[in-house]
Amino acid sequence: MLAKSSENIPDIVIGRLPLYLRALRRLQQEEKDVTSSHELGKRLDISSAQIRKDLSHFGGFGKQGTGYRIEYLIEKLQDVLQVNQEWMVVVVGAGNLGIAISRYRGFQDRGFRIAHLFDVSPQKIGLAIDEFVVKPIADLNKTIRDEGIKIAMLAVPAEHAQSVADQLVDAGVQAILNYAPINITVPSSVQIQYIDPVTHLQHMTYYLNEG
Amino acid sequence: MLAKSSENIPDIVIGRLPLYLRALRRLQQEEKDVTSSHELGKRLDISSAQIRKDLSHFGGFGKQGTGYRIEYLIEKLQDVLQVNQEWMVVVVGAGNLGIAISRYRGFQDRGFRIAHLFDVSPQKIGLAIDEFVVKPIADLNKTIRDEGIKIAMLAVPAEHAQSVADQLVDAGVQAILNYAPINITVPSSVQIQYIDPVTHLQHMTYYLNEG
Repeated sequence: MLAKSSENIPDIVIGRLPLYLRALRRLQQEEKDVTSSHELGKRLDISSAQIRKDLSHFGGFGKQGTGYRIEYLIEKLQDVLQVNQEWMVVVVGAGNLGIAISRYRGFQDRGFRIAHLFDVSPQKIGLAIDEFVVKPIADLNKTIRDEGIKIAMLAVPAEHAQSVADQLVDAGVQAILNYAPINITVPSSVQIQYIDPVTHLQHMTYYLNEG
Repeated sequence: MLAKSSENIPDIVIGRLPLYLRALRRLQQEEKDVTSSHELGKRLDISSAQIRKDLSHFGGFGKQGTGYRIEYLIEKLQDVLQVNQEWMVVVVGAGNLGIAISRYRGFQDRGFRIAHLFDVSPQKIGLAIDEFVVKPIADLNKTIRDEGIKIAMLAVPAEHAQSVADQLVDAGVQAILNYAPINITVPSSVQIQYIDPVTHLQHMTYYLNEG
């Protein structure tokens, strides 16, 4: 395992590593064995210099001139990001979004498995959604503690997001991915990220011809 | 309007502007008038030097020592990103995810309005989802052309994502936000972005204590 604590690496660099990992897996699916910072950079629209600099934080992954061995780099990035294991994740909110997340097929082989789906509504509790039976939010704390779950995805209405996040943190969750369009406050020891389609749309409108 | 074409600005910089805009709007909601690259940087976990450098691509937004006027910077970033107007967006796929997107309240006042929801399934076509009536995919091309729509969100199963994207591009769509867990190929003149919760989860697991 590579030393991740030997240096305080900027969070913005850490945020790019999953993009490198995703691009590398796509190259692997195309049955390539070796890549270069130039090829990766072209796919990701990131400069090759930036990619080499980012990866150099974790030691030398490739030899000058010979490029990166894809399988090796994937393994190393999985080690760095700690996704060489499977993390259990709870989803809170069994509305359309929570159900869509529970059925999402993009988690497979990338380090995550949805363990439980929770909701507060008596109409939803007990419903079978594929392999899940919707659990009552009253059981949230005990389930998370008993099973040592550290990651949650939040798919509740905006007005409930903060109070559910508080319950998750209280139960021991250390990382929350929030889909609700509202800013959440968590202790600094807890990670929070947002799924915000608007930031992606605004990124693209920069390039559009005016409507 | 600021000159956006005078310089070829790295895409990675453009991608950060919506994050700055979101943070600025939150500061505005907290009734602040002025901010600094330091304050913004702390909120976003991006260095203040990086923020100043990014913004300097678009001219000087603040005076040394006095910080940025939030309202002014919001307006300028909206100009740069071309979200000082309302773009119409189509959603393709009226499953749980497409319905959740259509109901998402995070688009308001940020430059986008869902105009239509499409699906291929006879069971879904004609259904009323709040203010939308699900339209048949057979009408996709004509609707997009007639209304000059340039942006689409893709919420179809992975195996249909490429063929729907091809139809969207053929109809004149210039920007696609893809929720399906699959890589899509589009002409270089078309923007594509992905909603991939796994990249966010992997970003956070870097910081977790091993499970």
